[in-house]
Amino acid sequence: MLTRDDCRRLDAEDPLAFARERFSIPEGMIYLDGNSLGALPRTTLPRVADMVTREWGRDLIQSWNKADWIGLPQRVGARVAAIIGAGADDVIAADSTSINLFKLTAAALKHQAPRQVILTERENFPTDQYVLQGLDALLGDAAELRAVAREELMDALDDRVALLALTHIDYKTGAIHDMAAISAAAHEVGAVALWDLSHSAGAVELALNRDGADLAIGCGYKYLNGGPGAPAYLFVARHLQDKLVQPLSGWMGHAAPFEFAMDYRPADGMARFLSGTPVVLGMAALEEGLKTFDGVSMRDLQAKGRALGDLFLGQIDAQCGDADFSLGCARDSSRRGCQMSLRHPHGYAIMQALIADGVIGDFRSPDVMRFGFPPLYTRYVDIFDAVTKLADTIRRGTWRDERFNVRASVT
Amino acid sequence: MLTRDDCRRLDAEDPLAFARERFSIPEGMIYLDGNSLGALPRTTLPRVADMVTREWGRDLIQSWNKADWIGLPQRVGARVAAIIGAGADDVIAADSTSINLFKLTAAALKHQAPRQVILTERENFPTDQYVLQGLDALLGDAAELRAVAREELMDALDDRVALLALTHIDYKTGAIHDMAAISAAAHEVGAVALWDLSHSAGAVELALNRDGADLAIGCGYKYLNGGPGAPAYLFVARHLQDKLVQPLSGWMGHAAPFEFAMDYRPADGMARFLSGTPVVLGMAALEEGLKTFDGVSMRDLQAKGRALGDLFLGQIDAQCGDADFSLGCARDSSRRGCQMSLRHPHGYAIMQALIADGVIGDFRSPDVMRFGFPPLYTRYVDIFDAVTKLADTIRRGTWRDERFNVRASVT
Repeated sequence: MLTRDDCRRLDAEDPLAFARERFSIPEGMIYLDGNSLGALPRTTLPRVADMVTREWGRDLIQSWNKADWIGLPQRVGARVAAIIGAGADDVIAADSTSINLFKLTAAALKHQAPRQVILTERENFPTDQYVLQGLDALLGDAAELRAVAREELMDALDDRVALLALTHIDYKTGAIHDMAAISAAAHEVGAVALWDLSHSAGAVELALNRDGADLAIGCGYKYLNGGPGAPAYLFVARHLQDKLVQPLSGWMGHAAPFEFAMDYRPADGMARFLSGTPVVLGMAALEEGLKTFDGVSMRDLQAKGRALGDLFLGQIDAQCGDADFSLGCARDSSRRGCQMSLRHPHGYAIMQALIADGVIGDFRSPDVMRFGFPPLYTRYVDIFDAVTKLADTIRRGTWRDERFNVRASVT
Repeated sequence: MLTRDDCRRLDAEDPLAFARERFSIPEGMIYLDGNSLGALPRTTLPRVADMVTREWGRDLIQSWNKADWIGLPQRVGARVAAIIGAGADDVIAADSTSINLFKLTAAALKHQAPRQVILTERENFPTDQYVLQGLDALLGDAAELRAVAREELMDALDDRVALLALTHIDYKTGAIHDMAAISAAAHEVGAVALWDLSHSAGAVELALNRDGADLAIGCGYKYLNGGPGAPAYLFVARHLQDKLVQPLSGWMGHAAPFEFAMDYRPADGMARFLSGTPVVLGMAALEEGLKTFDGVSMRDLQAKGRALGDLFLGQIDAQCGDADFSLGCARDSSRRGCQMSLRHPHGYAIMQALIADGVIGDFRSPDVMRFGFPPLYTRYVDIFDAVTKLADTIRRGTWRDERFNVRASVT
C-alpha cells in the first residue's frame, strides 16, 4: 500500500514529468476528465492569438499560402500519425469523428460491393451507431447493418461482411479490443477493419500499420488536447488510399481545388478524404495539442497510464473497501484503456460531490463514474489525493445533499 | 464623375459608417476580398482568448453547461437567421457548407421519393456540384443528377424533380437568381428549392421565408466575418423541419444526446440537422463575426453595396476606359451581388500587381478579376483609390513584371 510520499517519489522519477509543464491546469483542481476534454496546453493561446491577429487580421487571404493554411489537414494529420503508429502521409485531420466515419464506411461499402454488411458491436459508441444507422437508412437495400454482442463478433464475420467497424477502447468500460487479432479475422473473410480510436490515441500505444488496421477515425479533443470540438482525423492504409472514393466530395478533396472545374476528380492519396474548408482556428489549436506529445515515448506513456490505473485500484481497495463500489473496467491493466470506471447506485450524486470538492471526473448512465488519467499531465499524487477525497465523500455522506442529486441537462 | 472629395463626403454621410469601426483592417491596405475571407472583427481576439483561458482552461468540461457551448449551434444560427430573413429557430450553425448541402439534399430526396431528380445549374459553384455528384454516385439508381444551363432551368423543372439546388449569387459573375420566382416555379411542379447563400448572406437583403425558400445553406467565413474556415449554417423552412431526416446522424442531432441510447432518434426542430461535436472555437469566432451586423439595416446594407458597385463601374469607365477590360458582372446593380468582376486576358498578372500595391482582390480562371465590397467596412474612398491604383498599374504596365506572372498554387 503506497503512501502519499511514495506517490511524490514516483512523480519525481516519472520520465514524462516534463510533459505536465506543457499544460495550464487550474490551481487546486485534480482533473481526471481528459478522456472527455483534454486540458489546455500553454502554447495554445499564443498560437491562436497569433493566428487571429497576424495570419487572419493582417495577412488575410494570403495566409492560405503564406501561413500554409492549405496544408493544415496534412500537417496536423502527420502529427496524429506519429501517435497512432501510422505513416505520416496516411492520416489527415478533418471534420468531425462522425462525419469521418460516414465517409470511410460509405467508401468501403462501395469498394467491397456486392458485399453489403456493416458489422459492428451492439455496444459500440452511440454516435458511431447513429452514423452507421444513418448510412444504412440512406442506402436502403445496398447496405445492411448487423450489430451483435461483443462475444458474437467473431461468429458474425462471414463472406457477406464488407466492413467491420469497432471502437478500439470502450468509452464506458475502457475495454480494449485486440486490434491485430480482430483485423486479421476480418481479413480472413475478405472484410476491411475500421477502428474508432477516440479513446485510444494518446492514451495507449498503437501500431495501426503493424496491427493491420485498414481504416481508422478518431477525435481531437480528448487525449489529443485540441480543445472543445477540435477537428477529427482519419487514417486509410496505403493499399486502400487510391481505391476508395468517399461521397462527401467537397472542393478540398479535389485533385485540383483551385481549378474550379465542374467535375469532381478525387485527389491522390489522403487529400481525397477531405470535404469542405476546415475550421482553421480549430486546426491550429489541435496542432498545439498534438505538440504536447513531442519527445514522448508512447511506450512510456502507456506504462504510466497503466501504473496510474493500478495505483487508483489499489487505493480504492485500501481506502474505500467498505463502500458499495463495483469495478466497471478490467482489473488487468493490459485489458483497459487509460480510464477507470467505478459503478455505484448513487454514482451520479457521488461524482457531483467529488467535483464540488475539486476532483473532476464524469458520469455515464446508469451508474458509471469515469476517471481518466491522461499520462501527460496526471500525477501519481493526483490519484492518491483523488481517492482520499472520494473516501472522504463516502465517509461523510456529503453526496446526499440535495444539490448533488439534481441532474443537469449536460454532463 | 465623382471626385475623391465626393467619396469622402459619401463616407461621412454613410449610415453604416459606424460598422467599419468594428473591424481591424491593416493600415494602408484596401481590402476588397471580403467575399472570399471576411475581415477581422475587433472583438474576436478578446472573445477567443477568453474562451481558451477561462472557458476551456479554467472551467474545462463544465463549460458545456456554464458557458453554454451546447447551445452554440442554435445561438449562432439565430444570428444568421436575422441576416437572411428567417425565423430565429429555423437556422443552425454546423459543419461546412459542403457537408450541410449533402445533409439537406439527401434528406430532401428521401422525403420526395419516389422522385429522384436533383436539378441544378451546370455553372453552380464547383464544390456544390462535387457534393451533388458524390451523393448521386452514392445513391446509384435512387438519385439522378440533372445539371443544365442557367437558361434551361425552368424547362427542366418537371414532376420528376425532387429538389432544385442553386447558388443564389454566382461566385464569379455575381449574377443573382430570383429566389421568389424560381422557388415558386419549383413548388409548382412539387419540387423543393434549396439555396446556397454563401455569396448572398451579409451581402444583399434576403427574405427566405417571404421568398419561399425551403432549404438553404451557406458559409460563415465570407461576408459573415467568422474567420478562415468558420462553421457553416443551414436553414429548413418550418413546414419541413420535422419531415426531413438527414443521414449524417451524429449524437448532437439526437433527441437526447446525453442518454447515450443505442438507437438514433432525431431531435425535434433544427437540432436534428446537427452531426458531431462542433468546433467550439470556430463557433465563438463566428458569433463575433455575426455581431458586426448588430443594429445594421439590411436594406441600408444592400443599398450601400449597390452604390459601391456603381461607383466602381463609373470610375473604371472614367479612369480605365482605354484598358482591355470587359465587364464580368451585371451593369444593373439589382442584378448582381456585392462583388464586381472585370475580365482581362492578363487578369492574373494585373491582380498580382494590384495586390503588391496594397489593393487586395482575387482572380478566378480563366480571366476574372474579382473585387468584393462588403458594405460593413468598405468605404467609397477605398473604391476611388483602388480604381486609381488599377489605372496606374495599367498605365505603367507594372503587371508585366515577371514576378506577377508566376501562378501560385493557391489564390
